[in-house]
Amino acid sequence: MDIKEVAYLAKKASIKLAATGTELKNKALMEIARLLELRKEEIFKANREDLKRSEEENLAAPLIKRLKFDENKLSEVISGINSLINLPDPVGKTLASTELDEGLELYKVSCPIGVIGVIFESRPDALVQISTLCLKSGNSVLLKGGKEAINTNRILTDIIKTATENTGIPSGWIQLLETRDDVNEMLKMDEYIDLIIPRGSNEFVRYIMENSNIAVLGHADGICHCYVDSGADLNMAVKIVVDSKTQYVAVCNATETLLVHKDVAKEFLPMLKEEMDKKNVEIVGCERTREIIEVTPASEEDWKTEYLDYKLSIKIVDSVEEAIDHINTYGSGHTDSIISNNKENVELFMNLVDSGNVFWNCSTRFSDGFRYGFGAEVGISTNKIHARGPVGLDGLVIYKYKLVGNGHIVADYANKTRSFTHKKINKDFKL
Amino acid sequence: MDIKEVAYLAKKASIKLAATGTELKNKALMEIARLLELRKEEIFKANREDLKRSEEENLAAPLIKRLKFDENKLSEVISGINSLINLPDPVGKTLASTELDEGLELYKVSCPIGVIGVIFESRPDALVQISTLCLKSGNSVLLKGGKEAINTNRILTDIIKTATENTGIPSGWIQLLETRDDVNEMLKMDEYIDLIIPRGSNEFVRYIMENSNIAVLGHADGICHCYVDSGADLNMAVKIVVDSKTQYVAVCNATETLLVHKDVAKEFLPMLKEEMDKKNVEIVGCERTREIIEVTPASEEDWKTEYLDYKLSIKIVDSVEEAIDHINTYGSGHTDSIISNNKENVELFMNLVDSGNVFWNCSTRFSDGFRYGFGAEVGISTNKIHARGPVGLDGLVIYKYKLVGNGHIVADYANKTRSFTHKKINKDFKL
Repeated sequence: MDIKEVAYLAKKASIKLAATGTELKNKALMEIARLLELRKEEIFKANREDLKRSEEENLAAPLIKRLKFDENKLSEVISGINSLINLPDPVGKTLASTELDEGLELYKVSCPIGVIGVIFESRPDALVQISTLCLKSGNSVLLKGGKEAINTNRILTDIIKTATENTGIPSGWIQLLETRDDVNEMLKMDEYIDLIIPRGSNEFVRYIMENSNIAVLGHADGICHCYVDSGADLNMAVKIVVDSKTQYVAVCNATETLLVHKDVAKEFLPMLKEEMDKKNVEIVGCERTREIIEVTPASEEDWKTEYLDYKLSIKIVDSVEEAIDHINTYGSGHTDSIISNNKENVELFMNLVDSGNVFWNCSTRFSDGFRYGFGAEVGISTNKIHARGPVGLDGLVIYKYKLVGNGHIVADYANKTRSFTHKKINKDFKL
Repeated sequence: MDIKEVAYLAKKASIKLAATGTELKNKALMEIARLLELRKEEIFKANREDLKRSEEENLAAPLIKRLKFDENKLSEVISGINSLINLPDPVGKTLASTELDEGLELYKVSCPIGVIGVIFESRPDALVQISTLCLKSGNSVLLKGGKEAINTNRILTDIIKTATENTGIPSGWIQLLETRDDVNEMLKMDEYIDLIIPRGSNEFVRYIMENSNIAVLGHADGICHCYVDSGADLNMAVKIVVDSKTQYVAVCNATETLLVHKDVAKEFLPMLKEEMDKKNVEIVGCERTREIIEVTPASEEDWKTEYLDYKLSIKIVDSVEEAIDHINTYGSGHTDSIISNNKENVELFMNLVDSGNVFWNCSTRFSDGFRYGFGAEVGISTNKIHARGPVGLDGLVIYKYKLVGNGHIVADYANKTRSFTHKKINKDFKL
């Protein structure tokens, strides 16, 4: 089958899937969890093949680590499916209801988006996670994994296909693509694919975003900031900056640049450096920073860099406005935190910093779907439309308007025989 | 100024505009209305020049008609601004609030999208309408109108600029682009422009959609259907189909194709034809239709055509499933109506027809922001993300997450010193 046909079948299946009830979708999720456990030896064997081949091909160590699918990964994946089963169905919710006129009622009802294209790098657990999220939200999914994980991805897809088709989910809803050419075809297929979710490195995500007409949900960079304001509690600030930078460095919501108000820099920077030295964090700083603590110079390039490592850049600013301006210029619209006791500055910061997540007196590391209480996470989006910040299941649905009448025609309103009432009603859609 | 600089300034202004209060935005809207009235002779004079030149250049009559900006248009535009002033501000609404832990509160708060690019053809009133919608929702706007309206657009932009800058709205928030090259530059400027709204012909909108990485809000075609089911009240069906087709033929929500269940076709089609003949509607039909009423044959091309005229295509189908399948194959995802007394079929139709608006026993002509009670309309979207169907002011905002803590760090949750409460709280965001 060529990819156009695959995408066409996914679209066909998505229509039926949109009308599939919660119970059946949950039953299918349970069956996926059951088959994953039942056929785990097949998965591990395929994964060992992928690992062996990748080692022979000298794949980088962090990629090898992400490629691994063992008992631990399996139990994580299964517990993810179990919590997904317990989440409310995002489809079929009445979001608004209005009486337009007597007997003419308008309902805005959530529904699946349609076909989601997912492109991910080495982690095969992402395949299970994202396809079960798509199933719960009633979307078809086209998956393209890295070639290093090809055997693991094939067996995982086969398990999910078998489990769902056995349960009565329309076939064709999940499809695995295998070649790089397929990805480039996929990026052009706006006739059938409604949304693309890329999971992987910054360069990879940027490539996808720049090469498709289809909407992309995700983020390339995560250049997050802490700003320590003049009135800040400096002990609290040290604690928050250390956590934001070092609690887990390899993630998008870790802080990369620290901005410090000039009035507190002299007292604060030595306090911070002492703690950062304990964690072996390399610091680069602007000229004014280097007058206070001994660090190597930062260049403009540093303000644009996501280190994902034990490294922090520091800049001293004259005002909250300069901090905001720096963040809006060099940041990536992900997560930025102000540490301050001055409410006016906090308000300015939270309103003017153009990021999906703006924090006050807490660590940037909190911006995450699970910590936000979403139960499941589709990803973190730096988009300005549809869904922003950590995205839960709600990011995989849209809505349609359902209008129920009884012979109503527009001519009657145009010639003023009838007029609209536009009364809010609090009613769920039901025929 | 080159367009990159213009876009950069619009982005800069959008940051400040995002924090501009309702009162100031409404004051600016009032000032726009006042200056439009005050300087109307300048507008009419500029418009007469545009009309004269366009007539000399033999611009098509419907375009000339849309280009005209006279007392009537002015009063429409001003009454639009007045109702916009009375609408609630879509910015700053708390959409959800959760206590993550004691003293750590998460708020999802609506905010402007940023910079909207608007591209429209001859109608200069669209310039006022869309820029005031952007102002109310706190967005900067880059406008590109048709060259036939250049003088009218210049004076309208100047009035809006003057009125808003006088009131204290950040300058640079509204900018007029004038050349075709500017449009092509604009379509590439995803660094500064967050959303594009095209207003114009199908070909025009399709060109924009196919040539930009930036998200586009709108619709190209409006190929809407009525489906008369086997159990339908045939008198009601005639009334609805006549209204859907003929109440106003030149609009996107007018019906283009009628689908009729085979069991009622013999009785229904002659009834319908009688009424359609009175309105001089040309009918083309499938072979089975032509066995019942005397009409010219329809080709496959007809199912894909938006006539925007007194012309209707008719196809007889064997089942509601075939009707759904036809609509999902040839429709444009805009508006489709079923006329039926069979609830099961209605449910199937409303769930499986993949359109932004699915109707039961009423005219397709109802799908419109004003009829839906939105007060203002940004446009009608056939997108599957962000906003679908008629889009009101809400389509011009997104949200950000604001997290308020008191020294909270993630390490405490990772090492289980603390745990999340994830309690819904019903609180508006306030510092």
